[in-house]
Amino acid sequence: MFYIIEVFGTAAFAISGVLIALKKRMDFFGIIIIAFVTSVGGGTLRDLLIGVTPVSWMTDILYTYVILGASVFAIVFRNKLNYLRTSLFLFDTIGIGLYTVVGVERAISVGLHPLNCIAIGTITACFGGVVRDVLCNEIPVIFRKEIYATACILGGITYFILQYLPIEGDFIFIIAGLVVILVRLLAVIFKIALPNLYGNTGD
Amino acid sequence: MFYIIEVFGTAAFAISGVLIALKKRMDFFGIIIIAFVTSVGGGTLRDLLIGVTPVSWMTDILYTYVILGASVFAIVFRNKLNYLRTSLFLFDTIGIGLYTVVGVERAISVGLHPLNCIAIGTITACFGGVVRDVLCNEIPVIFRKEIYATACILGGITYFILQYLPIEGDFIFIIAGLVVILVRLLAVIFKIALPNLYGNTGD
Amino acid sequence: MFYIIEVFGTAAFAISGVLIALKKRMDFFGIIIIAFVTSVGGGTLRDLLIGVTPVSWMTDILYTYVILGASVFAIVFRNKLNYLRTSLFLFDTIGIGLYTVVGVERAISVGLHPLNCIAIGTITACFGGVVRDVLCNEIPVIFRKEIYATACILGGITYFILQYLPIEGDFIFIIAGLVVILVRLLAVIFKIALPNLYGNTGD
Repeated sequence: MFYIIEVFGTAAFAISGVLIALKKRMDFFGIIIIAFVTSVGGGTLRDLLIGVTPVSWMTDILYTYVILGASVFAIVFRNKLNYLRTSLFLFDTIGIGLYTVVGVERAISVGLHPLNCIAIGTITACFGGVVRDVLCNEIPVIFRKEIYATACILGGITYFILQYLPIEGDFIFIIAGLVVILVRLLAVIFKIALPNLYGNTGD
Repeated sequence: MFYIIEVFGTAAFAISGVLIALKKRMDFFGIIIIAFVTSVGGGTLRDLLIGVTPVSWMTDILYTYVILGASVFAIVFRNKLNYLRTSLFLFDTIGIGLYTVVGVERAISVGLHPLNCIAIGTITACFGGVVRDVLCNEIPVIFRKEIYATACILGGITYFILQYLPIEGDFIFIIAGLVVILVRLLAVIFKIALPNLYGNTGD
Repeated sequence: MFYIIEVFGTAAFAISGVLIALKKRMDFFGIIIIAFVTSVGGGTLRDLLIGVTPVSWMTDILYTYVILGASVFAIVFRNKLNYLRTSLFLFDTIGIGLYTVVGVERAISVGLHPLNCIAIGTITACFGGVVRDVLCNEIPVIFRKEIYATACILGGITYFILQYLPIEGDFIFIIAGLVVILVRLLAVIFKIALPNLYGNTGD
């Protein structure tokens, strides 16, 4: 089940990358690269930092197919993606929930301290977007809009608090992921009423 | 023989880095860094992604000597490099041909799927330039000019198609590399007649 | 003793990151990330290049506490940090001295050539700042102001020259580190009288 969620999350990340690359008027190759970077950049950095090589997405060809497929889809239907806006936002949000908890668990498996595990979870979920923004010559958007990363951090903290309760591993995984998703959803809804100081909106 | 080609390719990449760093009015240290990044950045990223450490260029001091030598040469003769323009372009093109196939073979050696091997080959040849452009605070030039990377991808595809024919390994290496070189040469010649939409020229 | 120096160096790097992030009007999360990147970015790149994973700072939670503590301190007292300007500069300078020699020794331990060891030492001391500047969408400041990195390179050269003299390892470590510190101090004092071509000042 998680595998299916991951596919949708990966696709949503890829499509968000395509949309940004199109705005920057990149060519086909550039668009594909930005799609990959957005999707797998966070997981790649996680794997490099904790020492998992070849990096995960390289050893499972499914990611490559999903990202290529989603990218071509997004390029072809680029003028109609507005209709999918809400779906994409939901997939993307579910994606960061999943990526965060997967990252936390991978960090635990190499014996890191909980604080650093939460950092790795957040990196997994957020740094694809950071590298994407760097390649697009922008200051990373998440450095100016706290809630995205904060949702991941809160999810990570939840994960470790739940360790002290008599709850099964799978449920901890799901609850921590849901915390990420809920915080982000609430943050976006809340933002509609309360724009931040710098006047950024959307994602 | 490949070793000698690699030396010339490495030098050509380094010199192209120096020229761009000079344009950005960097100091001596900055110029050397950009030369290194342009030369070995792609191979470094490849080694990190597939898990070869210490990264290759660090374990063979020849690269360091070649890059330092080529950089000092380029800085000293910076006003006369125009005469070498065609030679540099040729070395650079031969370099990406070689780097692409070397990258593909390294990726095969760790058991990656052909699609990801082609990606690794393309990363080896192109990402030094990407990191160079990021450090120079530009959107990477190859994201806006498709042919550079497309040549690498076509060379990588050729490599895998040739596996099905009764051809020896060394010839496959050479033919795939030549495909990269030819596609790029033809693309550049073709471009003279057909500038792209964004008005970029040169490399 | 080195450990205590490292704590102060790490804190000074973190605070310098915070100050730059504040100038860029980043939010809390962005500031923390820039603090981490400035502090541990160089060591992280070193560890990745030579193949030490999980990267060093991830396996010793002290770094995380020091960086978080220093960052919160710097954010709270951001309007009063001017009084600490000289102390911060000194900690930062001692930090690069220490980081350089630590980097050189780690590179020796994996058997690299002295030239590449010096490169690794310089990377350890300088590349946190490079990644920080890239994330802040600036051309890295050290590429335009030679002395910072030159100090590290001279310290690294000193380290290897001292190998030929009958001096104990710990003294070599200290002398090489002091060379970095002295060169940088002299460079800054010298700069007061001789601003460079591009009109940059400060760090």
